[in-house]
Amino acid sequence: MKIMVVGASGKAGKATRELLSRRGHTIVTVGRNSGDIRCDISQPEQLSQLWSRVGRVDAVVSAAGDVPYAPLEKLGPDDYRSAFDQKVHGQIDLVRTGLPYVAERGSFTLITGVTARDPILQGAAAAMANGAVESFVRAAAVEIAPQRINAVSPSVFTESLPDYGDYFPGFAPVDLAEVARAYQKSVEGARTGEVIIPA
Amino acid sequence: MKIMVVGASGKAGKATRELLSRRGHTIVTVGRNSGDIRCDISQPEQLSQLWSRVGRVDAVVSAAGDVPYAPLEKLGPDDYRSAFDQKVHGQIDLVRTGLPYVAERGSFTLITGVTARDPILQGAAAAMANGAVESFVRAAAVEIAPQRINAVSPSVFTESLPDYGDYFPGFAPVDLAEVARAYQKSVEGARTGEVIIPA
Repeated sequence: MKIMVVGASGKAGKATRELLSRRGHTIVTVGRNSGDIRCDISQPEQLSQLWSRVGRVDAVVSAAGDVPYAPLEKLGPDDYRSAFDQKVHGQIDLVRTGLPYVAERGSFTLITGVTARDPILQGAAAAMANGAVESFVRAAAVEIAPQRINAVSPSVFTESLPDYGDYFPGFAPVDLAEVARAYQKSVEGARTGEVIIPA
Repeated sequence: MKIMVVGASGKAGKATRELLSRRGHTIVTVGRNSGDIRCDISQPEQLSQLWSRVGRVDAVVSAAGDVPYAPLEKLGPDDYRSAFDQKVHGQIDLVRTGLPYVAERGSFTLITGVTARDPILQGAAAAMANGAVESFVRAAAVEIAPQRINAVSPSVFTESLPDYGDYFPGFAPVDLAEVARAYQKSVEGARTGEVIIPA
C-alpha cells in the first residue's frame, strides 16, 4: 500500500512508519518541520497543497496534534481553541480534504488518547480534543463507507514515562511497538468506526 | 437553590426549569433571545456581563448549543467551528468563567447528546461536539471538586419525533420529563464527572 503518515517525526508516528515500512508498504512522511512533505494540517491552504503533491493513497495515518496541558484554572479560551485547531479540526480537515484521494476501501487512522475516557489533572483540553475526535470517527465511519476510519487511543507511552509518567499515576503505559501495531490493525484490517486501544 | 438555566427557552431547558421550579428552586433563565437575562455564551464579553448580573448561584444548568447537521461531504470547516464555538467552547467557557460564582458544592450540568456514542447520518459535527463535552466533563470533575460537573446526554426527544424522528431510525426516544429528571439528578444529587443518559 501507499500510506501517508502525518506527524511522522513524533514518537507514535515514527514507530508506526517504521513498522509499516518493514511490512513492505510505501510510506510518504508528512510533518510540520520534517518529512518528505512539510505541512501543518491546521492550515487549510497547506492541506490542499499536500493532497495535490501526494496524490492517491491507500491509507492515511495521523499521529499529529499537539494540545496544551495546564491546570483547569489556567486553561483559557486560546488553549481550548488551540487544542481544537491542532488535534480536532486539523485531523477532521485531513479526512474531509482526503476523501477524494483515498482508495475505495482505504482508511484513515487518527490519533486520540486515554484522557478521552480516563481523566488526569491538567488534561481538560486534551480530554476535550480526544473525545471530539473519537466521536467524530464513529460518526464519519457510517458516511464514508466503504472507505474506513478508526482512532488509535493510547495511554502514556512506556518510552515517555521519564518525562510524563508523573501526570499518569497508576495508568498502565503502552509500548510504542503496540501503538504501531494498533495503526497496522486499522490500516491492514477491515474494521471501521472503532476506537482501538493499544495494550 | 438558586439555579441559572442557560438555553431556557429550548425544549430541554424549558422542561428542566419547569421541573426545578416545581421543586421550589429559584430559577434565573438565560437565553440568546429570551429569558430573565439575554446572553450568547459563545461571546466572551457577554459571559462576563452575565456573571456580574447573576452573581452567586448554587447550580448552573446548560441546555444550550446549536450544531449544524448535514451530510459529511457538505460539512465544511465553518460547520465544525460553529459546532465547537456554540456547543463545546460556549459551555466550557460557561464553566471556566462560572467557577468563582458557583457554590462550594454547587454544580454545572451541561448538555450533550446520543450521537457522542451512537452515530447518525448527517451527525458528524454534532458527534464531535458531544464527544468533546463529555470528555471535558469527566476531566474537569477531578479538578473542580468539591464543585461538581456532569453532562446530560439525551436521545432524540419523544416530543421532537415528528420533526427529527427520521434522523434517528431505531433509536429509543426519551420524554422531556425524563431529560428534566436527569438534570434534577445532577443538580440535587451528589454525583460528578458523569454522563447521565436519561431513559
